[in-house]
Amino acid sequence: MTKNNTASIDVSQVTGLGQDRVSADVSSPSTAVERRVLAKMLKSFGEPAIRVRLWDGYDIAPTSKPALVTVNITTRSSLKKLFIQQGVGFGDEYAAGRIIVDGDLLDFVVAMSESRMDIEEKGGIAEAMMKVAQRRPRVNTLEGSKANIHHHYDLGNSFYRLWLDEKMQYTCAYFPDQTISLEQAQHAKLDHVCRKLQLKPGDRVAEAGCGWGGLARHMAQHYGVKVRAYNISHEQVAFAREQAEREGLSDSVEYVLDDYRNLDGKFDAFVSVGMLEHVGTKNYCELGGVINRCLSDSGRALIHTIGRNQPRLMSAWIEKRIFPGAYPPTLREMMDIVEPYNFSILDVENLRLHYAKTLEHWLDRFDKQETAVAEMFDDAFVRAWRLYLSGSIAAFLTSSLQLFQMVFARGRDNTVPWSREHIYSAN
Amino acid sequence: MTKNNTASIDVSQVTGLGQDRVSADVSSPSTAVERRVLAKMLKSFGEPAIRVRLWDGYDIAPTSKPALVTVNITTRSSLKKLFIQQGVGFGDEYAAGRIIVDGDLLDFVVAMSESRMDIEEKGGIAEAMMKVAQRRPRVNTLEGSKANIHHHYDLGNSFYRLWLDEKMQYTCAYFPDQTISLEQAQHAKLDHVCRKLQLKPGDRVAEAGCGWGGLARHMAQHYGVKVRAYNISHEQVAFAREQAEREGLSDSVEYVLDDYRNLDGKFDAFVSVGMLEHVGTKNYCELGGVINRCLSDSGRALIHTIGRNQPRLMSAWIEKRIFPGAYPPTLREMMDIVEPYNFSILDVENLRLHYAKTLEHWLDRFDKQETAVAEMFDDAFVRAWRLYLSGSIAAFLTSSLQLFQMVFARGRDNTVPWSREHIYSAN
Repeated sequence: MTKNNTASIDVSQVTGLGQDRVSADVSSPSTAVERRVLAKMLKSFGEPAIRVRLWDGYDIAPTSKPALVTVNITTRSSLKKLFIQQGVGFGDEYAAGRIIVDGDLLDFVVAMSESRMDIEEKGGIAEAMMKVAQRRPRVNTLEGSKANIHHHYDLGNSFYRLWLDEKMQYTCAYFPDQTISLEQAQHAKLDHVCRKLQLKPGDRVAEAGCGWGGLARHMAQHYGVKVRAYNISHEQVAFAREQAEREGLSDSVEYVLDDYRNLDGKFDAFVSVGMLEHVGTKNYCELGGVINRCLSDSGRALIHTIGRNQPRLMSAWIEKRIFPGAYPPTLREMMDIVEPYNFSILDVENLRLHYAKTLEHWLDRFDKQETAVAEMFDDAFVRAWRLYLSGSIAAFLTSSLQLFQMVFARGRDNTVPWSREHIYSAN
Repeated sequence: MTKNNTASIDVSQVTGLGQDRVSADVSSPSTAVERRVLAKMLKSFGEPAIRVRLWDGYDIAPTSKPALVTVNITTRSSLKKLFIQQGVGFGDEYAAGRIIVDGDLLDFVVAMSESRMDIEEKGGIAEAMMKVAQRRPRVNTLEGSKANIHHHYDLGNSFYRLWLDEKMQYTCAYFPDQTISLEQAQHAKLDHVCRKLQLKPGDRVAEAGCGWGGLARHMAQHYGVKVRAYNISHEQVAFAREQAEREGLSDSVEYVLDDYRNLDGKFDAFVSVGMLEHVGTKNYCELGGVINRCLSDSGRALIHTIGRNQPRLMSAWIEKRIFPGAYPPTLREMMDIVEPYNFSILDVENLRLHYAKTLEHWLDRFDKQETAVAEMFDDAFVRAWRLYLSGSIAAFLTSSLQLFQMVFARGRDNTVPWSREHIYSAN
């Protein structure tokens, strides 16, 4: 059953529950055909280090390595959905509790991701088949983006407050030392970004996709700049404004409930942390045009985004249930933002492992809040989100996903820094 | 007259002298048509801040800005070559002494480059026309590369010794402090590269395109690594081996007179400084394949190269007379090296202004050695090289050229550094 939540999102869109009800399960034993198809499917996945057990007790394990976990497929219809919808089928049936993982969920998703990366590196038919199963992201027109962003970011501030850091940073943190707390690492990330932008008091900063506004407030408070921050999530903007008011920063930070494409004015810095994933490659050139229109002659721009080494769509289940419209670009694809406008790329850094670590903190906190989350939504939602967070850890650990920070400036700007030492010297 | 030089290069290939002898000049005044075509040409170049004076005293200056220098076209055939061959015509006639710049040559080339960048940023017909005038680089097959590299790098070690630093570094230096000497900056560059590669004693390093071998010896001496360095320039390899012998590094550094495509073995680091410009975009995927074949599972790779913000061929005169086969790539083009092999880009840095500063040092030293260079080659060679060095300063100052250092590792390598602080903490 779907409970009410704080922001009137239909939770069944996240869990897949109730959308296509399964028929009562037939408890007859698995057939020879079902077993053969399952074996073929596992082989096409590169024989991940998992054992699969069907509702009738039949099981199948990899021949070349020990199984780390057992995946129980408890109904025939779950198996069918797995055959037909692959990742989406798995995600929905896992959320529904009809596929159950015995053992560590993280071990399972890492094993799956490892196999997938092996296959991708080899290429060939298996890889081509996996690509067929991918799901095109939903479009990010002005209207499309609103719906896509609402789906995820308007799940309710009280939900995110349960397991994010106190400043509600829902993007990759920065761990110069792996033992620091999530709060410290999120603080370090904000400073890392500000140092890369070389902010100085009085600077005008534009932010596209500001989340709950933590970076904007940090910049205003610690670097004495004026920030205009755009976001199309009502819930986030409402929180951000309230928080700025409370911290006495309303004069320095303006939160605009609007699309980044309507950004206007001239700025000494442009920053976007964790928005590009939602922009869509077709709109990159337009995003570059917005930056080109708004950046001063000696301005700096920074884009922080999840990315890929090779082009590939987002996991189909993640795109369908968790992040509609999302796509993590390669650096090559990101060139559409800068190349048409003769921007000079000054600095690219890859923080992949930092995102794995950030997600580990989130998952840990999420698990501790399991009861509260289930109370707020339902058990299926808890399982869906645990799968999403674990799967993301696996993706960063196995290098299926990257985290790029890219700094650029106008090509003709000779005031660019001679060294990046300033990023580190303040530590 | 072309004098003997140390390495039996036909200097007329550099200066263009004697290749297409001009007929005796007709001293009749410039015609109305000639003046009109000249005016149109200057307009299509964006009216650079220069005055042009013809052999008969007729001159033309920009209407919108003061002229910084006067360019004297002293013969009718020089003007014709300018009309027909544009950049190549200018370079050859300048080298021949038939086009003379009154004022600072650097002011002239900067003015020309500024105009060009203005036009490129605007786009349109003028830009399209400039592209037509570009010259496709000569091919870099195994044989083609040999001829191309021989043309430039085998001009004679005694020539390069006149104006390079003591360690014969013929690539962009690193000026963490702009006031340090060229020697200090080249030393800083070597360390910058080594720190990015995180070299540790005992590491096996492969170097592709090692110049006079300075980086290889530096790595062996200061970082305790074993280096195998490839180069197809006889002159450079002979010098490098002699120097390694002298410094007692012959056991740690092996210089191989061969193409990087024949690189063999397994290495903890791959490095290439200033070679990619000579590789040709068609061979990038193959270069990536060489790195993929040779890099250990936890190895680091660094490519240091001149590049562009937007794709454009090398200056036609530079490609014809100075660097046959050369092409400075965009970051997008460089992705052909890494993307097919699932390499993760860890770090990109742009050192554009450092190359302008490096070239200023070189030009200054070159000018001081003018008599010796003229003695070694001839006056036309001196002028050709002064134009090349000045033009390169202008290209980096106006952002027509970039300098990228790109660090990457295998996608699945989780031993990559968490921060880049190590690059700066040793300072």
